[in-house]
Amino acid sequence: MDAKLDLAIREVVIANRILANENIVDASGHVSARHPLHPDRFLISWSRSPEHVTREDIMECALDGTPLHGDARPPYKERFIHGAIYETRPEVNAVVHAHPEEVLPFSVTDEPLRALISSASMLGRRVPVWDIADAFGNDTSLLVENIEQGRDLARSLGHGNLILMAAHGLAAACPTMIEVVRISVYAARNARVQMAAMQFGKKIRFLSEGEVNVRGAGGYFAADSHGIYRAWEHWALRAGCADLLPKRDDATMRTL
Amino acid sequence: MDAKLDLAIREVVIANRILANENIVDASGHVSARHPLHPDRFLISWSRSPEHVTREDIMECALDGTPLHGDARPPYKERFIHGAIYETRPEVNAVVHAHPEEVLPFSVTDEPLRALISSASMLGRRVPVWDIADAFGNDTSLLVENIEQGRDLARSLGHGNLILMAAHGLAAACPTMIEVVRISVYAARNARVQMAAMQFGKKIRFLSEGEVNVRGAGGYFAADSHGIYRAWEHWALRAGCADLLPKRDDATMRTL
Amino acid sequence: MDAKLDLAIREVVIANRILANENIVDASGHVSARHPLHPDRFLISWSRSPEHVTREDIMECALDGTPLHGDARPPYKERFIHGAIYETRPEVNAVVHAHPEEVLPFSVTDEPLRALISSASMLGRRVPVWDIADAFGNDTSLLVENIEQGRDLARSLGHGNLILMAAHGLAAACPTMIEVVRISVYAARNARVQMAAMQFGKKIRFLSEGEVNVRGAGGYFAADSHGIYRAWEHWALRAGCADLLPKRDDATMRTL
Amino acid sequence: MDAKLDLAIREVVIANRILANENIVDASGHVSARHPLHPDRFLISWSRSPEHVTREDIMECALDGTPLHGDARPPYKERFIHGAIYETRPEVNAVVHAHPEEVLPFSVTDEPLRALISSASMLGRRVPVWDIADAFGNDTSLLVENIEQGRDLARSLGHGNLILMAAHGLAAACPTMIEVVRISVYAARNARVQMAAMQFGKKIRFLSEGEVNVRGAGGYFAADSHGIYRAWEHWALRAGCADLLPKRDDATMRTL
Repeated sequence: MDAKLDLAIREVVIANRILANENIVDASGHVSARHPLHPDRFLISWSRSPEHVTREDIMECALDGTPLHGDARPPYKERFIHGAIYETRPEVNAVVHAHPEEVLPFSVTDEPLRALISSASMLGRRVPVWDIADAFGNDTSLLVENIEQGRDLARSLGHGNLILMAAHGLAAACPTMIEVVRISVYAARNARVQMAAMQFGKKIRFLSEGEVNVRGAGGYFAADSHGIYRAWEHWALRAGCADLLPKRDDATMRTL
Repeated sequence: MDAKLDLAIREVVIANRILANENIVDASGHVSARHPLHPDRFLISWSRSPEHVTREDIMECALDGTPLHGDARPPYKERFIHGAIYETRPEVNAVVHAHPEEVLPFSVTDEPLRALISSASMLGRRVPVWDIADAFGNDTSLLVENIEQGRDLARSLGHGNLILMAAHGLAAACPTMIEVVRISVYAARNARVQMAAMQFGKKIRFLSEGEVNVRGAGGYFAADSHGIYRAWEHWALRAGCADLLPKRDDATMRTL
Repeated sequence: MDAKLDLAIREVVIANRILANENIVDASGHVSARHPLHPDRFLISWSRSPEHVTREDIMECALDGTPLHGDARPPYKERFIHGAIYETRPEVNAVVHAHPEEVLPFSVTDEPLRALISSASMLGRRVPVWDIADAFGNDTSLLVENIEQGRDLARSLGHGNLILMAAHGLAAACPTMIEVVRISVYAARNARVQMAAMQFGKKIRFLSEGEVNVRGAGGYFAADSHGIYRAWEHWALRAGCADLLPKRDDATMRTL
Repeated sequence: MDAKLDLAIREVVIANRILANENIVDASGHVSARHPLHPDRFLISWSRSPEHVTREDIMECALDGTPLHGDARPPYKERFIHGAIYETRPEVNAVVHAHPEEVLPFSVTDEPLRALISSASMLGRRVPVWDIADAFGNDTSLLVENIEQGRDLARSLGHGNLILMAAHGLAAACPTMIEVVRISVYAARNARVQMAAMQFGKKIRFLSEGEVNVRGAGGYFAADSHGIYRAWEHWALRAGCADLLPKRDDATMRTL
């Protein structure tokens, strides 16, 4: 198998396991990667719960959500979230759809989720909320069931990397798998801290525009830096799937 | 053993283990299935804590709560909850009685538990509360100790699939075991999200009548669909009892 | 070894392990039993963290807190809590001192902890709070360091089975070990539910005097009933120490 | 290896594992000890997640943060926190930097974290907050990236043993490793209890000056007393690294 494809599949599996182990996904939720050789396809498990996904479960889909190569295993109902985002955002290579409890209160009120802890700076100054009812009415299943609904969500996401879906969950989209897992994990943590801080009824120090920008400018915070890789490796070790990590020789690691 | 009976017993055991592992039951709480061959009986463990229930622990009871076949093992005190619901609701084949902490605040105030996350749409627009004190006074044990109390609870449940029991817990009743486990798990989650959202002191977007209805109309959300089965299998794997799941051949699975 | 003494020692060990596993004690906290043959002595571990207590760790103390038989292992600093209660309350055979986080907010404000869930009926209508500062001033270590302080606490406990200790923890005292573990576990749960319910800012349905009394009158709720034993066995299984439970033959069990 | 150095390295490893297991650190956070033979150096892991730190990961740094002995492994970005505190506080021999969620709300509002449970008396009457923005503006990464920023933090810490870092975490500094782990663990617990108690909207009993002082005066609460060592051993057992504890003979233990 092509080495880039092999790595992309491993990363999809590792991300599934990490997000399950860190309580970001449960029976539901999914992770995908853009196909590294065919940018008009994405890699995603067939409809399995993320905790149990293995390499063999990964299928290929076209951006309109059609499973390729005659794969007859049932796909995730909401695979259109992934396809529509990849279609719109050429720089995005990894997408997560999840339903962490902690962010849901911010999806059903007009109280915005905002970065207030340093590790969640990727959330930025205000996470937008997409309500399927706005464009599709009050009689939907709340699920993103077709590519039109996926495209409407992608439009609301715009150039951002995170959007809440009202009464439902979140969609995250980043250039790399490490980043998309990172923002998913820290979105839940930021939500917990924000809810606790709000109960004091006092002025809250949210991250400044400058703090968000400095941390978003790469360098130490880039997805390929050692500091960021450290968290990825840590989560994989905890999830029991570190054997899927590519070997890194010490020399490489040390220069990151 | 009859194949349908064998499957029903397996499902009772799996449900016990899942509900224990997902923190819906603890030392107390119980699950039953209507006997698939004798609709005037139900299958339920003798008085064991759900986490430890095995196939051998399942006993048969008449709808009035009498253990059958001379089974002398101590039954659950509150087995009348099950019998009274089966008696009133011919379409119900599975009942749970549990005490998840998260729903209890909604049982001791007039603040209603209402579906506000998509996965909990089965809760509907407002979960009713039954207070044993209303019909039986302020000097009860709070337990459903006889068939009359069970029938009073069943009357309050009406055609619903979930009712809170004041200062005590919940009773859930569904056509299938998968559904009754599902509503029990997601009732607790919905309660957590609702309590968190209420603290913002802002208008909350609860599920619309249409959203509840679309998701309740079967299809993708039917108990025998692949998407719903996925959660059941996931919970069984986590609870360490997936060996009790019936074998599904790939062909069947894929066409669901 | 005398069979009653053997059983009492086993119960002290099991209770330590259960309370650690159920998050009621951590590095600190202790459990004792009155010596079944010498009512002027009690059985308690030397100063070990409860999670690691074994049979060999149990020592004997006089009611004034003096270790007996020349046992030179360091005793718990606060053993006086136990001795003072046994001294005052001849019907008490088991005592717990613990610091579960959930009850502490009720110990540092005048908001009373009150039974509002059926499983916590032993808490009664209002759990008293003892503040060491009331009798011993604002310059103590907050610990019960001598028998006089223990006696002052015992006086405040009176005929009750639970008292909070301001800014510190709780002391529970019951006729049997099963009961004292039970009230410790459910005190924390009741506190969680009460704190959540209070956030609705609405009238709360606490247990009535009659409900508390019915459940306190023995019968199904007696410490030697099957229903109550079921929880004890469940907790011991979860804590990995069920091998310490005495053998119960089926006949006995079934008639309980 | 020198026995004192060997012990110091073991303690750094044990502390990393304990803090990970007790949820005080996660992918990030670090622990150091002053070098017992060279007070102008400190011992700290290279940039690994604390849960996975072993003896081999410990490196030596100069107080200005420079790794010694040509160690080319990537160091923690924020090692300057440690160096600057050791530089200023000769009596400090152990430092923790961590981000426990529970203390963060107190770092982004002017609501002070204050000791209100006996086990957290080390927090004192009011934990100060350092905001990097005060001296370095609104365009930093929030991280302590150089020795000047470390020194500014150390100045705010003053003679204290704990300081919150706005929107970021905490720094703790104590004469011994046992103490610095202890204050880190109990800071999070105190924060949970304080947040819960505040929701009652009533007057809260915080620890008095006298209570803080009595517990801070050594004796039973000294780092080398048996009662305090008991917690250290307990946490190490739970974290699965008790094999790293030095052997204590019974005689020594009993006289502590």
